[in-house]
Amino acid sequence: MPNGLLIPNSSTTRSASDARPRTSPSDAPLGFAAAVREWSVAIGQAAVDLGEGSLSRSARTTGSQSNRPLAILSPVSTAQVQQILEIASKHGIGVHPISRGKNWGYGDACPLGPNQVVMDLGKMNRILEVNSELCYAVIEPGVTQQQLYRHLQDHQTGLWMDSSGAGKEASLVGNILERGFGHTRYGDRFLSICGMEVVLGDGRVLNTGFGHYANAKAGRTYRYGVGPFLDGIFSQSNFGVVTKMGIWLMPAPEEFCAFFFSGENASDLPAIIDALAPLRMQGVLQSTVHVANDLRAISGRMGYPWDRAGGKTPLPDDLRAELRREFMMGAWNGCGALYGTKETVAAARKVVGRALKPFGPKFLTDRTLKTAAKLQRALRWTDWGRRMGERLQVVEPVYGLLKGIPTDEPLRGAAWRVRKPCPAVPTDPLDCHAGLMWVAPTLPSSGRAAQDLMNQLEPIYARYGFETLVTFTLITERALCCVTNVAFDGREADETARARACYEELTDTLLGEGYIFYRSGPRGMAKLTAEPSTFWDVAGQIKSVLDPAGIISPGKYLPAA
Amino acid sequence: MPNGLLIPNSSTTRSASDARPRTSPSDAPLGFAAAVREWSVAIGQAAVDLGEGSLSRSARTTGSQSNRPLAILSPVSTAQVQQILEIASKHGIGVHPISRGKNWGYGDACPLGPNQVVMDLGKMNRILEVNSELCYAVIEPGVTQQQLYRHLQDHQTGLWMDSSGAGKEASLVGNILERGFGHTRYGDRFLSICGMEVVLGDGRVLNTGFGHYANAKAGRTYRYGVGPFLDGIFSQSNFGVVTKMGIWLMPAPEEFCAFFFSGENASDLPAIIDALAPLRMQGVLQSTVHVANDLRAISGRMGYPWDRAGGKTPLPDDLRAELRREFMMGAWNGCGALYGTKETVAAARKVVGRALKPFGPKFLTDRTLKTAAKLQRALRWTDWGRRMGERLQVVEPVYGLLKGIPTDEPLRGAAWRVRKPCPAVPTDPLDCHAGLMWVAPTLPSSGRAAQDLMNQLEPIYARYGFETLVTFTLITERALCCVTNVAFDGREADETARARACYEELTDTLLGEGYIFYRSGPRGMAKLTAEPSTFWDVAGQIKSVLDPAGIISPGKYLPAA
Repeated sequence: MPNGLLIPNSSTTRSASDARPRTSPSDAPLGFAAAVREWSVAIGQAAVDLGEGSLSRSARTTGSQSNRPLAILSPVSTAQVQQILEIASKHGIGVHPISRGKNWGYGDACPLGPNQVVMDLGKMNRILEVNSELCYAVIEPGVTQQQLYRHLQDHQTGLWMDSSGAGKEASLVGNILERGFGHTRYGDRFLSICGMEVVLGDGRVLNTGFGHYANAKAGRTYRYGVGPFLDGIFSQSNFGVVTKMGIWLMPAPEEFCAFFFSGENASDLPAIIDALAPLRMQGVLQSTVHVANDLRAISGRMGYPWDRAGGKTPLPDDLRAELRREFMMGAWNGCGALYGTKETVAAARKVVGRALKPFGPKFLTDRTLKTAAKLQRALRWTDWGRRMGERLQVVEPVYGLLKGIPTDEPLRGAAWRVRKPCPAVPTDPLDCHAGLMWVAPTLPSSGRAAQDLMNQLEPIYARYGFETLVTFTLITERALCCVTNVAFDGREADETARARACYEELTDTLLGEGYIFYRSGPRGMAKLTAEPSTFWDVAGQIKSVLDPAGIISPGKYLPAA
Repeated sequence: MPNGLLIPNSSTTRSASDARPRTSPSDAPLGFAAAVREWSVAIGQAAVDLGEGSLSRSARTTGSQSNRPLAILSPVSTAQVQQILEIASKHGIGVHPISRGKNWGYGDACPLGPNQVVMDLGKMNRILEVNSELCYAVIEPGVTQQQLYRHLQDHQTGLWMDSSGAGKEASLVGNILERGFGHTRYGDRFLSICGMEVVLGDGRVLNTGFGHYANAKAGRTYRYGVGPFLDGIFSQSNFGVVTKMGIWLMPAPEEFCAFFFSGENASDLPAIIDALAPLRMQGVLQSTVHVANDLRAISGRMGYPWDRAGGKTPLPDDLRAELRREFMMGAWNGCGALYGTKETVAAARKVVGRALKPFGPKFLTDRTLKTAAKLQRALRWTDWGRRMGERLQVVEPVYGLLKGIPTDEPLRGAAWRVRKPCPAVPTDPLDCHAGLMWVAPTLPSSGRAAQDLMNQLEPIYARYGFETLVTFTLITERALCCVTNVAFDGREADETARARACYEELTDTLLGEGYIFYRSGPRGMAKLTAEPSTFWDVAGQIKSVLDPAGIISPGKYLPAA
């Protein structure tokens, strides 16, 4: 055995919060020691991390419990990923791949069960190709949003990417495989990928689309390939490890125009959705449009006002109204953008302006933003200047996101209920013990459905003493995704217990009502797969042939065999 | 044995053409007689057709050879499809499902190997739901383009569908599963489906997307569901039989505007593609745009001018130029459309007009078309009136397709090389012995690539005495699909032999150059799967668990086990 290697006791850990640990076997599984020896030979001892500190750090969670990995493996190439999986298959050790491990609120970087190792793909972070004519890139899973953004800027490619709100250091591939969504014309991110390299459980390398034809001319421009279209099965699953992905980029549009709007009253939600839905359905709005309630918006501006609320939770109604006034926001606050030529953007702007008229639409372009900034600098000592300064500070990151520029600003909201001071913009919610459990139901794009969903959510959150932080996104032409979360302080045992109970009730109620999630954290997965169905049987059968030893992320979506 | 049932000799037949029949076993496989008995009990004797006439008719092909089915089974429900497949699995009899059997030029309605039965889903032709608010329908595989179109019109739904050029009687589901494409904003048809019911080889029923949650609110509006996204694996494959499909429809746009353009010279192709590609990439053009060469356009107007060519093939250059002048068409002729509000269509029209300026763009709306028709009627005895009458007759079906209105007009082109008179618009190319082998390579959306592909095609067609009939479609934002075909008279042995050789050389050359097909007929499939690769291995493994007896369309895309 290589010197210096310690085989730690396994496996489930107390989370960063004070939540109860899962019961678990206390010893590493049979074969783990041998696997570690073989991994160390295959990828180098330095790439097999068994350090207590690393493992504890890796097990931190924004949820209420987590599984501590047995080791962290850091491959640098597809060949090493193959070797890791082959060795894992031989010894029957579960391997949970992470791209950058920023899956906050959905299970973080933690394995979904005990006795697994984490495979950290962060060192596979090459941008392998950027094609400015056909507007695509080929990247590895460790490539971050910021890294690709900088690359596109630095090389003056004239290309824009889509960025999610998950921050600068989040992986593109990781988020896309979870079918996350962003803010631009390519906001349905899974639609904008083309060709994946996937290492299967038994170490084989699969190229999807036309990728298995070495010379294919349309390999990065035509998604489907010929024969069965396989890409979908590698999203939200544990059938393989994606090691390369083609992703489509947008040519910087001739004209870009962001729009912002707000509804004064909580009851404005259905009217807002019904104003936007037809524009999305007709293709006038080609990008995702996000509509956040005041609480979500406030949580993006400040932590919970513990002092002003006198320590009381949930946020009292009068304080909520006060904050809304202070921040000059509505009960509902939305944003979206238009992309195209001068003519087409001007035309769409007219249509959007007309539809959103009751909600005071404001349009913002690079020109108006520049002018405002110039004025603000000139008048920065005046009242107007100060207020405008604040507004610009709030608007700029959102405006940027609509152009695909990554920002860490939205992460601020994750720390809403954290009691002790946090860095102004925490780039990792785990660093400030933020508790965060996403609930992300889908619904048809209709105001009625959105209001009904709100009616389901609010009493449940209230019952457990939490605020209803919520965003509705017009994610496609005819579907909404509602993103809401239980926010809590992971160090507060009582609040954490209530958060867990609240999450359980939200999940049971919403699934019971047919508001099925577009994505889920570990606790939700068990509920989503609870009913026997041919769907999950088929998924299990596909798993059984692509990962015969069942070693990739056991328990992820699919119940562990 | 039920009386009146005859077990015919199997299986490979001489095609409608004079091509050589495949060598084949001369007897039906063991178990077939028993299977027929069980099928007759399960779905009724009348739904099990063993008639010589029916079987011969079913074996007709636009290609150069085909397989005659052993029987034709006509289920009326999902339950019957399950029973058919269960019985087939038990006895090991291959079942080739067809929706309407209009897969002309890609294998028609024929099984891909000997000793199979055809399962004709034509009687499963219910439109199960139409939702005008969320703009979708749920249909069975037997629903034809014309049927859905009429339904949407008759019920004043205010909805538009996408229509392919495959004619009024073609199945929507069948074409979508082959990843065919159409002419509208929803022209990438496989993108506009939501939720499938699939009967697997062993008789289980799978519901994809959110379909397996009985109460899912977004079941027909959000495609991916949660967990692995499975839809793709049931396209261009033989893993299951799709018995229901959600398909998205478009709200009739406030404004619609078609555009037509042409390039005078053969050398205009790259400039045309390069003018259109950026508009597609920026989302200004949201629909597929089709660009056909003169030969393709001429073949849509008339049969081969045998007399004027003095019986000579391929078409002499001077006659080709003459016909181009007579029909007032260019060397390249394109069409596309704009959908939206008055403002957005007007704006896009400006942009398209500017980009296509060298190619004389003409815009056509319902208003201009109505005015022209009125004028034409008034002046129908004049020269102008006659010419305008002819033009309108040509334009109307294409204009309709851009609005999703099915037409049989494009089928005319299939009969190009047929020597004897045909009905004016044959609604079934098989009725006039049309020989038709599609070759459909994909390429990046660039003028250079399109020209290079033309340079590959033309000498091969010329060498075998055929014309290069070709369309380039800007099928997505960054890919072109080239659709070209060997057109021949299926009764002419020599021409059929040359057609087959030409197809072989086209296929070998294009695949060799990396112009991989988006879709293929039987002969191409063998070439596409010839190289061993993990891709086809994985496809085979998925097949093995979803259709363990290997009875669904053996030989389709996947090599038969």
